[in-house]
Amino acid sequence: MVIPFVSRLDLDAQQAWIDVLSAAMPDEHIVPFATLTPEQKSACHLAIVADPEPNDLLALPALTWVHSVWAGVERMVHELVSPTFSIVRLVDPQLADTMSEAVLAWTLFLHRDMPAYAKQQANYRWEQRPMVQAKERRIGVLGLGELGKVSALRLAHNGFSVAGWSRNEKHIAGITCFDGHEGLVSLLRQSDILVCLLPLTSETKGLLSRESLAYLPAGAGLINFARGLIIDDNALLEKLDQGVVSHAVLDVFMQEPLPKNHQYWQHHAVTVLPHISAPTHLISASLILADNIKYYRMTGIIPSCVDVSRGY
Amino acid sequence: MVIPFVSRLDLDAQQAWIDVLSAAMPDEHIVPFATLTPEQKSACHLAIVADPEPNDLLALPALTWVHSVWAGVERMVHELVSPTFSIVRLVDPQLADTMSEAVLAWTLFLHRDMPAYAKQQANYRWEQRPMVQAKERRIGVLGLGELGKVSALRLAHNGFSVAGWSRNEKHIAGITCFDGHEGLVSLLRQSDILVCLLPLTSETKGLLSRESLAYLPAGAGLINFARGLIIDDNALLEKLDQGVVSHAVLDVFMQEPLPKNHQYWQHHAVTVLPHISAPTHLISASLILADNIKYYRMTGIIPSCVDVSRGY
Repeated sequence: MVIPFVSRLDLDAQQAWIDVLSAAMPDEHIVPFATLTPEQKSACHLAIVADPEPNDLLALPALTWVHSVWAGVERMVHELVSPTFSIVRLVDPQLADTMSEAVLAWTLFLHRDMPAYAKQQANYRWEQRPMVQAKERRIGVLGLGELGKVSALRLAHNGFSVAGWSRNEKHIAGITCFDGHEGLVSLLRQSDILVCLLPLTSETKGLLSRESLAYLPAGAGLINFARGLIIDDNALLEKLDQGVVSHAVLDVFMQEPLPKNHQYWQHHAVTVLPHISAPTHLISASLILADNIKYYRMTGIIPSCVDVSRGY
Repeated sequence: MVIPFVSRLDLDAQQAWIDVLSAAMPDEHIVPFATLTPEQKSACHLAIVADPEPNDLLALPALTWVHSVWAGVERMVHELVSPTFSIVRLVDPQLADTMSEAVLAWTLFLHRDMPAYAKQQANYRWEQRPMVQAKERRIGVLGLGELGKVSALRLAHNGFSVAGWSRNEKHIAGITCFDGHEGLVSLLRQSDILVCLLPLTSETKGLLSRESLAYLPAGAGLINFARGLIIDDNALLEKLDQGVVSHAVLDVFMQEPLPKNHQYWQHHAVTVLPHISAPTHLISASLILADNIKYYRMTGIIPSCVDVSRGY
């Protein structure tokens, strides 16, 4: 039975996915949605998706579940309102490893004062800045899901003092865990570097607002590797200009690519990254999808899926 | 009995050391060399040094040993020819930890393409560069002493493929160890990022020459956290311009501060750092000196000292 690949990616990008997915599950017949016959549309229970057009999915009446090739599915959840099928997102241990490496890399970038030393070099200035030991540097990780937990532990293993915050109470050895609104304020108050790894939901949209950013210690660093909409951009620009936030590393934006006229591009205290903290690895993602689909063919069991009411 | 502090540092810097050293060993009387009486000069067996003037040390006829507040003593060894006293350098486990953090931080800086992304930002360019996994990135560490060993292990713990090279044969679990001239060529050939942590000796001076840098894979990264004289600057500039070396992170230079007219300052492929990879921590260094000196007072035993013939 065919599995349609439903996506708004350009055709080359779609074909690259279909090629690697097909190699990972040679018994399946994966085809672009556009090539489906009416009979195939009526029959298919399962689709593989990468930013799908909602109407395409609604044209598949027998759909039981869809498997996303990515971890982030909030756009699909937002657009589909009340889907009659289950949404499974990619849970790739390699992804958490790559993300935790990015978190460590840019935390060290801020911890070791790389932005300041780059400015000094541009001004031919030889000046040793005060050294802070990692154990004296308090890192706050927002979000303790797969990505947040692995990242927090990796920071702790590299000597930092790490706390984390999540919606529900969590316990992670070596990490001070906060939850709820009061917990958020406590975490922000003690984060010399704040790392955002939250999913985008109605509750996290705009969470890093003028009010919440004000709780950060003066001169804190900020890293956003989650979603652009979690930060109120105007509030952040204000805090950067006031020095409340000394430097922001931003990998995600409300609109991507970041428009050329956006202030972030040439702001002296912002590092703009083109959404590269944890790129999905085609091969490792395809192997995970293949395993999940094979397991479903053998048992009829759909992998654990997204809670549409929470949005992740 | 007084312990002279012998140093070419400016007087404020000398006093800062004397204050912290005195607090760490309140039973000792530490004074600037310049304030010694002739009787005190004749009597003292022990001096604490920080880049000492050789003639000052020769004016202390009863000297048995000197304790440096730093790990690097090659200038003193070079200037003193055949000293009649032992030279003890600082061995501070905190220093190895700080250095390994710097090695990890700037290895990640190169591994995650931070110089390229900074250039893209300056040009308003949104482009995702190919992602290399840490296990596919081969790091070569030159020097497997205290600093090199801890740094190599830390890189390996963070997922990199790590090899190392030392003068004498070494075995370190998880690290591919090379030695000797042939071993050096093998290491260079497989180093996507080369990290220099060698002591400066007659054998390592100019080791990274036009000839040896040519063994690196095309586009390799280079980090020098050891001594400037280990690299032939003209050879490195040539290799940078040819793209044989894609980027160099330099923390140490033949002359420090790096002269304002040096090409490195504004070279597009060089990160200039003002000797900050592993700053000596006054307090932790002073506590180690205090322990060594107390042990000597109790037992008469001088801590393990520098082999002047090797230079470290």
